[in-house]
Amino acid sequence: MRPQEIIATKRDGKALSDDDIVAFIDGVCDGTWADYQITALVMAMFIRGLNRREQYSITGAMLNSGTIMDFSDIDAPKGDKHSTGGVGDKTSLLIAPLAAACGVAVPMISGRGLGHTGGTLDKLESIPGFNVNLSFANFKKVLKKCGFALAGQTNEIAPADKKIYALRDATSTVPYIPLIVASIMSKKLAEGLDALVLDVKTGTGAFIPKYAETLKLAKSLCETGKTFGVNTKAIITEMNQPLGKYVGNALEVFECLKLLRGEGEEEMKPSLDLSVELTATLLVQCKIAGTMENARDKIRRALATGEALERFRKNVELQGGDPKICDKPEMLLTKGLTEVKVFAESSGYIADVDSLAIGSMVGEIGGGRQKAEDKVDHAVGYACIRMIGDRVQAGDEIGIIYCRKNQAAKVTDRLRGAYKVSREITRTTKLIRAVV
Amino acid sequence: MRPQEIIATKRDGKALSDDDIVAFIDGVCDGTWADYQITALVMAMFIRGLNRREQYSITGAMLNSGTIMDFSDIDAPKGDKHSTGGVGDKTSLLIAPLAAACGVAVPMISGRGLGHTGGTLDKLESIPGFNVNLSFANFKKVLKKCGFALAGQTNEIAPADKKIYALRDATSTVPYIPLIVASIMSKKLAEGLDALVLDVKTGTGAFIPKYAETLKLAKSLCETGKTFGVNTKAIITEMNQPLGKYVGNALEVFECLKLLRGEGEEEMKPSLDLSVELTATLLVQCKIAGTMENARDKIRRALATGEALERFRKNVELQGGDPKICDKPEMLLTKGLTEVKVFAESSGYIADVDSLAIGSMVGEIGGGRQKAEDKVDHAVGYACIRMIGDRVQAGDEIGIIYCRKNQAAKVTDRLRGAYKVSREITRTTKLIRAVV
Repeated sequence: MRPQEIIATKRDGKALSDDDIVAFIDGVCDGTWADYQITALVMAMFIRGLNRREQYSITGAMLNSGTIMDFSDIDAPKGDKHSTGGVGDKTSLLIAPLAAACGVAVPMISGRGLGHTGGTLDKLESIPGFNVNLSFANFKKVLKKCGFALAGQTNEIAPADKKIYALRDATSTVPYIPLIVASIMSKKLAEGLDALVLDVKTGTGAFIPKYAETLKLAKSLCETGKTFGVNTKAIITEMNQPLGKYVGNALEVFECLKLLRGEGEEEMKPSLDLSVELTATLLVQCKIAGTMENARDKIRRALATGEALERFRKNVELQGGDPKICDKPEMLLTKGLTEVKVFAESSGYIADVDSLAIGSMVGEIGGGRQKAEDKVDHAVGYACIRMIGDRVQAGDEIGIIYCRKNQAAKVTDRLRGAYKVSREITRTTKLIRAVV
Repeated sequence: MRPQEIIATKRDGKALSDDDIVAFIDGVCDGTWADYQITALVMAMFIRGLNRREQYSITGAMLNSGTIMDFSDIDAPKGDKHSTGGVGDKTSLLIAPLAAACGVAVPMISGRGLGHTGGTLDKLESIPGFNVNLSFANFKKVLKKCGFALAGQTNEIAPADKKIYALRDATSTVPYIPLIVASIMSKKLAEGLDALVLDVKTGTGAFIPKYAETLKLAKSLCETGKTFGVNTKAIITEMNQPLGKYVGNALEVFECLKLLRGEGEEEMKPSLDLSVELTATLLVQCKIAGTMENARDKIRRALATGEALERFRKNVELQGGDPKICDKPEMLLTKGLTEVKVFAESSGYIADVDSLAIGSMVGEIGGGRQKAEDKVDHAVGYACIRMIGDRVQAGDEIGIIYCRKNQAAKVTDRLRGAYKVSREITRTTKLIRAVV
């Protein structure tokens, strides 16, 4: 079947056969499909739609385009968390050690930041010496020794997805649920998991803001996971303000270490709360705990005994980083950054926070990437001093931008209007909206 | 405006602004739009549709992406013919000298054959020495001296169309009327014409087979031409069997010379009849004749006096070809070709001819191209001995394949089933279906 014929089938709104889809994905991998043919087909898929069978078929073909990891020689249940991405979301760095401390093996393959969202790999690289480029043998060794391993997507995992995703990003074909599901699940299924918990963000700072759409995405992710034999659950969480206190690579690792050490400030609490809920769900999925309450107890114990922190320290050591940061998280903070304060523009209650604006601002001062090849400044970031529902007076400090001196002029007034203050309490946030 | 935003607009079914379209065409020309972005937008245009304003806007932007020829210093009215492409259609080689002999200046930019249809440039190159690569200055000189000039599309004429067309061909986005119209008209409007007559093919051998669609295409071409100030007419003609006797480059030039010399055989008559009608339409459009009958008279005179043949001879001379072929058309025929005969499979009347099969067969034995970079064998081809409506006995010779010896085994039985014979006369062909 020539690319033209497969493209014409979807162009005319007909369903593609499994053979068509395998031919497409094979062609993406071996280069017989040109990039301009890939994007033409993907646009036709976006507009004409994919039915459930087609979506499963693409997921499977992308999964099988690469290696599927085999951890059958590890006794512990294999589990992981995936988030659709939010501003200030550092839960991966908490869930991995928490779940590992409770007996889950967590082979976590993560991404880098792009646009307004950060990436776990970038955060980890703010730890001096930390290496996210592990061979499979090394990845497995780390996983066996400390219960979790954190690495980047190699070319062996769902290579078709890697190529297609980059092309979708350049052709406005990212926001289509069946393609999002196929992209996420082809990578996660390659981790050889028993259980997967998904954090699907909804609200203004989420990549799919509308709740009904988020719910559809969450359901589709779960159904796809189950179809491929992985116990999959999704938690829909609000992303209408940054999660926790800090946004920025080193600052977020700092926040996680403070929480693992039991020294977390009030503003950091949402980060821990969400991590506990996601980890607890995973423990129940993995049958390590019978109920959520039982699971939460186990997690609290792992925190209280310092076992989670020990797992983190061990991981940093195994992945080449400096474990001293676990004792002195302040080591992660760069001295001499310029602090630009953000003030409340009126008095009342904070009703809305433009987390997209905050995420983009941190990205633009160097904390993220505009293009995949950009370098990241791990030091810069933002601290949320006040949250939705907090009472403020005009002129109160509500946030701090940490930036390089030469950026200070640029960021002044950058977040003007990012906080909406209203006379009465119009809303409070509810972190968890639904469990799917 | 970033490519992604323009793509998203059409992806969501919204109309593009004139600025969006100019940005797109500029981006195609200067390379800031990647090929994969071009095809994504074109697929969205194909599925979501383009309104009339958008179609005119694309036509204009593609036209303005290149040079528009200026023949204002030539007194004669400037006119041309364009055909949507058929098998055995060699009318360009007759219309150009006929119209020139009657006082029209014909600056004819033509294409090469691809797939099952031939190209005027390939046909001309079967004349020893004939040069289709003329500079604009040279093109104009030839036009002034003999009334017509024939050349290939240079990089200066509608370069955006050239690039987009090649990408559409590879991504199954060719058959969409607004894009077809924009592609044809951006090139024809660049010829600086007063009048344009279009031969829009319908029927099984046409690129748009359905009559209703053909009519839509013809109307849209005429409206677009008029919008850009060119007197445009379209004739819808049947393409359900090859036009005239021969299919194949040198054979078709041979047929034209025989007709210009008044030595045409009965089977060649449709080629002349259609050429006369198209030329007559052009003469009326150019106000050289007041009525079609008057125009036909002028054309018959140009043939009878040998003036049209003289124009052809002069043109061959000016474009570097050997003018002796005008005296001895047989010089064009290659000796020693293998003749493979095609016989009627049953007795009755020829009801249907698969002109696509004949065109593809001639292409595959070397007469055409599968890919743009293929070389063409000018000698090979096909002769139609019997036409639709002809009475045949089983075993009668109905066609001859002229091929290279090593192809003979390959072509045997190649056209089996291409001719449908029925007991009664089921149809006759009517060359001209409508004038738009």
